Amino acid sequence: MELLKKKILEDGEIHEGNILKVDGFLNHQIDVPFLKELGKEFYNRFKNENVNKILTIESSGIAIAAMTAQEFECPLVFAKKSITKNIAGDIYLTPVESFTHGTTYGVIVSKQFLGRGDRVLIIDDFLAVGNALNGLIEIVKESGADLVGCGAVIEKGYQGGGDRLRKHGIRVESLAVVESMDHENGTIEFRD
Amino acid sequence: MELLKKKILEDGEIHEGNILKVDGFLNHQIDVPFLKELGKEFYNRFKNENVNKILTIESSGIAIAAMTAQEFECPLVFAKKSITKNIAGDIYLTPVESFTHGTTYGVIVSKQFLGRGDRVLIIDDFLAVGNALNGLIEIVKESGADLVGCGAVIEKGYQGGGDRLRKHGIRVESLAVVESMDHENGTIEFRD
Repeated sequence: MELLKKKILEDGEIHEGNILKVDGFLNHQIDVPFLKELGKEFYNRFKNENVNKILTIESSGIAIAAMTAQEFECPLVFAKKSITKNIAGDIYLTPVESFTHGTTYGVIVSKQFLGRGDRVLIIDDFLAVGNALNGLIEIVKESGADLVGCGAVIEKGYQGGGDRLRKHGIRVESLAVVESMDHENGTIEFRD
Repeated sequence: MELLKKKILEDGEIHEGNILKVDGFLNHQIDVPFLKELGKEFYNRFKNENVNKILTIESSGIAIAAMTAQEFECPLVFAKKSITKNIAGDIYLTPVESFTHGTTYGVIVSKQFLGRGDRVLIIDDFLAVGNALNGLIEIVKESGADLVGCGAVIEKGYQGGGDRLRKHGIRVESLAVVESMDHENGTIEFRD
């Protein structure tokens, strides 16, 4: 998506250690009118799939998932990373390793909100090694719902998570795939 | 807001210990088309205040804050509860006690995204004792931005957080104020 590539080149910052900082528009400050356009793009790519539920994981996936759910006029379920007083009863739980935090956490969804008959589109802000997506996919399988596919705003192609999912026959649509970054001269190469 | 009161009565569940469970539409599964209506209501209440930034805190405030930011056509900043690789550099940090989790955490906002000249509307899903809002208000003050007011979807009036803020001259708009709940017979009384 050219609009997104342009935004990444203009507003993104490359830091040492393969960090692409897009916290000016995607995951700390959120450019909501811009994310609305991204939500429309996900809708266009999956509009023939009878999606009736968007699934994401807290926190930075929620805004783009909400903008996407709005286009599908369907509910959004966001998986939680800890059990609170507000989640009671039967849950799906799967362990996930966090690349950003360097820890392991549980991905939790109440059984009440996901199950047979649902056609689920998973949306997240980033796809790198794919741990979060794998956890969400596990939960969709366990629930008996149908997985329509996964949409990521930015995929770090060189970390392989997206391609591993595609090899397993899962439809993965990333609005921009970064193939390489160079923090010394600030360049980014995108997959065509 | 009558639409919201009706929704709470239809879909909310009252549990022992003053828990109002609205995870079917507000903070786990999110009824996005419905939240869009709530976002419009916040816009109507604050539209003359020249709001240029919505501030919330992860995670369950993000969806309603995004729906509100969409109406104002302005960015949303969501405060984080932990420092990640994605937040670097100067930050505002204030400690907040969590009523839901029973712990203390830091509320963190990058200085880059909040400062003098901003007119900030704070949005959250729940207002109970007001700890999260107080933390966000502290950060707005520290940043030199102007606080326009606070909007909460559901205020638990009997916990006093909203009225304490109002006493301090802060404009607080809650779309539904619960005055009392009875988990034994499942009744909810709203403030008029």
